[in-house]
Amino acid sequence: MPEYKAPIRDVKFVMQELLECEAHYQHLGYQDASLDMVDAIIGEAAKLTEEVVAPLNQIGDQQGCTWKDGVVTTPDGFKEAYAQYVEGGWPTLSQSEEFGGQGLPHSLNISIAELFSSANHSFAMYPGLSHGALATIEAHGTDAQKQQFMPKLVDGKWTGTMCLTEPHCGTDLGMLRTKAELQADGTYSLSGTKIFISAGEHDLSDNIVHIVIARIPGSPEGNKGISLFIVPKFNVNEDGTISDRNGVNCGSIEHKMGINGNATCVINFDGATGHLIGEPNRGLKCMFTFMNAARIGVANEGVAAAEASFQGALAYAKDRLQMRSISGVKNPNGPADPIIVHPDVRRMLLTQKSIAEGGRALVSYLAQLVDIGHAEKDEAVKADAETKLALLTPIAKAFLSELGFESTSHGVQVFGGHGFIKEWGMEQLMRDTKISCLYEGTTGIQALDLLARKIIGTQGEVLKPFSKDVTVFCQQNIDNPAMAEFIKPIMAYAKEWHEITVLIGGKAMKNPDEIGGASVDYLMYAGYVTLAFFWAKMAKVAQDKLAAGTTETAFYEAKIKTAQFYMQRMLPRAKGHAACIANGVDSMMALDSEDFVF
Amino acid sequence: MPEYKAPIRDVKFVMQELLECEAHYQHLGYQDASLDMVDAIIGEAAKLTEEVVAPLNQIGDQQGCTWKDGVVTTPDGFKEAYAQYVEGGWPTLSQSEEFGGQGLPHSLNISIAELFSSANHSFAMYPGLSHGALATIEAHGTDAQKQQFMPKLVDGKWTGTMCLTEPHCGTDLGMLRTKAELQADGTYSLSGTKIFISAGEHDLSDNIVHIVIARIPGSPEGNKGISLFIVPKFNVNEDGTISDRNGVNCGSIEHKMGINGNATCVINFDGATGHLIGEPNRGLKCMFTFMNAARIGVANEGVAAAEASFQGALAYAKDRLQMRSISGVKNPNGPADPIIVHPDVRRMLLTQKSIAEGGRALVSYLAQLVDIGHAEKDEAVKADAETKLALLTPIAKAFLSELGFESTSHGVQVFGGHGFIKEWGMEQLMRDTKISCLYEGTTGIQALDLLARKIIGTQGEVLKPFSKDVTVFCQQNIDNPAMAEFIKPIMAYAKEWHEITVLIGGKAMKNPDEIGGASVDYLMYAGYVTLAFFWAKMAKVAQDKLAAGTTETAFYEAKIKTAQFYMQRMLPRAKGHAACIANGVDSMMALDSEDFVF
Repeated sequence: MPEYKAPIRDVKFVMQELLECEAHYQHLGYQDASLDMVDAIIGEAAKLTEEVVAPLNQIGDQQGCTWKDGVVTTPDGFKEAYAQYVEGGWPTLSQSEEFGGQGLPHSLNISIAELFSSANHSFAMYPGLSHGALATIEAHGTDAQKQQFMPKLVDGKWTGTMCLTEPHCGTDLGMLRTKAELQADGTYSLSGTKIFISAGEHDLSDNIVHIVIARIPGSPEGNKGISLFIVPKFNVNEDGTISDRNGVNCGSIEHKMGINGNATCVINFDGATGHLIGEPNRGLKCMFTFMNAARIGVANEGVAAAEASFQGALAYAKDRLQMRSISGVKNPNGPADPIIVHPDVRRMLLTQKSIAEGGRALVSYLAQLVDIGHAEKDEAVKADAETKLALLTPIAKAFLSELGFESTSHGVQVFGGHGFIKEWGMEQLMRDTKISCLYEGTTGIQALDLLARKIIGTQGEVLKPFSKDVTVFCQQNIDNPAMAEFIKPIMAYAKEWHEITVLIGGKAMKNPDEIGGASVDYLMYAGYVTLAFFWAKMAKVAQDKLAAGTTETAFYEAKIKTAQFYMQRMLPRAKGHAACIANGVDSMMALDSEDFVF
Repeated sequence: MPEYKAPIRDVKFVMQELLECEAHYQHLGYQDASLDMVDAIIGEAAKLTEEVVAPLNQIGDQQGCTWKDGVVTTPDGFKEAYAQYVEGGWPTLSQSEEFGGQGLPHSLNISIAELFSSANHSFAMYPGLSHGALATIEAHGTDAQKQQFMPKLVDGKWTGTMCLTEPHCGTDLGMLRTKAELQADGTYSLSGTKIFISAGEHDLSDNIVHIVIARIPGSPEGNKGISLFIVPKFNVNEDGTISDRNGVNCGSIEHKMGINGNATCVINFDGATGHLIGEPNRGLKCMFTFMNAARIGVANEGVAAAEASFQGALAYAKDRLQMRSISGVKNPNGPADPIIVHPDVRRMLLTQKSIAEGGRALVSYLAQLVDIGHAEKDEAVKADAETKLALLTPIAKAFLSELGFESTSHGVQVFGGHGFIKEWGMEQLMRDTKISCLYEGTTGIQALDLLARKIIGTQGEVLKPFSKDVTVFCQQNIDNPAMAEFIKPIMAYAKEWHEITVLIGGKAMKNPDEIGGASVDYLMYAGYVTLAFFWAKMAKVAQDKLAAGTTETAFYEAKIKTAQFYMQRMLPRAKGHAACIANGVDSMMALDSEDFVF
């Protein structure tokens, strides 16, 4: 099993040097988030993930969760590790001080979350889900609801879930059947079945607070008749203490490809008491509060998976001796050269590395936009950040989960046949990471959100703030010869991105299916160009550091070389996507659905 | 679990209409392989795979094989199904009549093998391995060895294996340590440990004949000191009857990502009696007899996986109702439209379909080249076929295993979250298929075989016969307006393929690492163009059938539409690979191996 080392140096590079988090935090009023504090927190998170959480990753996969009579038991060690997580105050990090949180920035929490996800995807999901529930209650709950439910969610003694999917509907939530009937006391009685509820039932916390979408009888059909409810496993008194058991039961857990350490539950609501959040029939809008946060979380999982698989593959590639380098013996005292000498092995390692580090920059940037959304006073700045977040969230979610998955596949390939053997842990990373391409909206759904809803839906307006940043950065550096290898291709691709957008927009006027025909290729194209922008920015920081004089020459030179690899061997993949988009949707729609097989 | 239906119509289209197998068989002297006979055999194979083999696929995954004290038990039903397979005479199909075979063409066997692999990858590997062992003994064994070992391997009462890999060497077999010492009686005593031995021990057959590579003490180091041996589980008397147990033991079985129904064994040789095949120290050359056949077999697994996953995804996409078509409601009486109306779902389905059907054509063509290698009298024709086989085997193995795997991933995506759940069977296809990108030489190794050994190694000579076929086909059809949409791009890509080859060859003169830097992208590029050629040929056949008048209009039109999808949405992916190759290897080699992480 690959031994996990938290990439502390790189996390700090991204947060502190690339994104200048100190100034960002001070500006937003996060006075406690000094560089020293950030360093200390990252250091502690590294220790916990390396020493406690990572060692449970393989056992979590092997044992999985078990279900008996509605009770779910997590794998050996998860309960103790979660207790340590709570004890250490990790759940409280970015929560409001009003409810017992530390009031630190959300972005810091997101950077920490990557470490937990790399160490143990299944474990990291338990607290991950609580964040969504908390964010929803904080944004849309009444003061009484906040007092009742938030403190215990904040301190981690309770956990949360998001209950959306039903057997017959996932993407199309307007079809949901779970019913919520108003009771005399103002609560609602919920009945129905939800599936795919991550962390829906387990033994880590004293109570589980489900955020549930349901339909109030008489509501409009479809998306306009969805309401949102708090439905706790145990009812909660007004003072926040636990009362009797609610009518919420775990009917079974799923047997899955991966993330076996996380319980994916069927949750049955049998006249369960629920508390309406926000207004009736406005549930879908409220739900997007946690949906958007969750999507950044999934993008982060892609980064985490790329990092974990890279670490395993790198260690093996330095250790495994096989064949001689074609350009001359590199390890004359051994029976063969370490496989890291072979260009194709390096291609796979650098692909992983450039995705992990590039993805880390993108996700950390999104995390800062989230901070701005929470704490910026200037409404124009805030609106600008929210527009960028709207654009970049589906890109990051789908592109990084797909490339994170690709990275785990390279990790297996670097190990050759050994990669297929469970013992080494490389195939588990593949199995665990595939879920990131599926949940919180599949890659296809993200692509439609991006292209149909956001880009075509705003006639391209959503692109402007981010495009402007790219343009400004390019203009600032266009006359710098050392930056030419980054700036020139980015300008060319950014131009092509614009042309492709106009092309699809034009075609879609005649045939709206052109949008769906282009969407995934369009998202991947956008992803490659977006990451190129972040790689160029990182190369610039590294160049500046080297020019200013540094003792970490090798670190900054490696950053520039990885940026060069990305520009030369990753970004050109966008050409294939552009070529596919150019050919349009006709060949996809020509076949009658009955003529797919004979 | 997806229900498997053998794609009989398409198998016949490829064999009979595209590749005109009747004329091919008659020319080579396979008099028994009439169209009626071929039809009957495909029909029987369809029945056996659909009714007996496919229903064991999921249970094979769930139960896996079990090991106790050296004895391996296959999953419930495998033993009975294998007995039925033997009873039906399937192992004998393409074997020599001299040893009890039916003497039918190898290509027929390869077409049948696809059905078995689609139905149950793990099960299909048991007889698959026997073919390799048989081919080796027939090609390189003495008459006595053939008499002793072949009849029972031919009738399937015994099975075979290939024992190459050792813990410290897989790709680099020259490092092997298994020792073979000459005994007074002319046999050899083998000692050592082999790993990853598929079907190395099991309960399906009375004896297991291992083909083992080992080093005779005093032999040259490296690849020039490898010899090949027959080492049976039970010793065999000269008359072919079973004698005492040999010193061959299964030390354990691996726990793997997939193919759980197939036993992947550690095999210990403790002074086991072995019989030298061929000359001492010429083992590696003999081994390539089964290696090349095995690689076509793995290419076939990619096709099989694409087909199986396509079938599952298609059924789901027609059934699952979710969202409305963006171009207008398609299922007004239902609560939503079936997801097959959505362009992105169609993109995934057509990707799977175009890989399965295009790959089937390519593998079936390779199978005919194998027939020619066996039975053609004209040495020039035979040499031409062997050169094409040398070129196309690594392309087919790596490209089709990679795209087969991609197809299984699309199958999961079409199912959304349900794809991740074991019950549906879609994720098993992914897990099972990943092995095809690894064994018999990883994708990286195939790419080096193609580009370094074969293309650069022959200064491009190996490309000529196949290129000529492509050129002739294009010239024949260039003036046909109905074929322009296929011929024009193929000519352009074939030209670019040539240019890329020259470019890499030139760069490699200065830096041999350029070969490894380009190899996988080069192979993928070659794969997309090669499959385009087969799609164009299939489109031509379909056009001709339609022009001549047919009752199967829908079938042939679907073929043309799928060809159009391939040309418009799959082939352009090659552009991304070409763009990556153009940027060369420098960015891959710049980083010192110690500077990959800090």
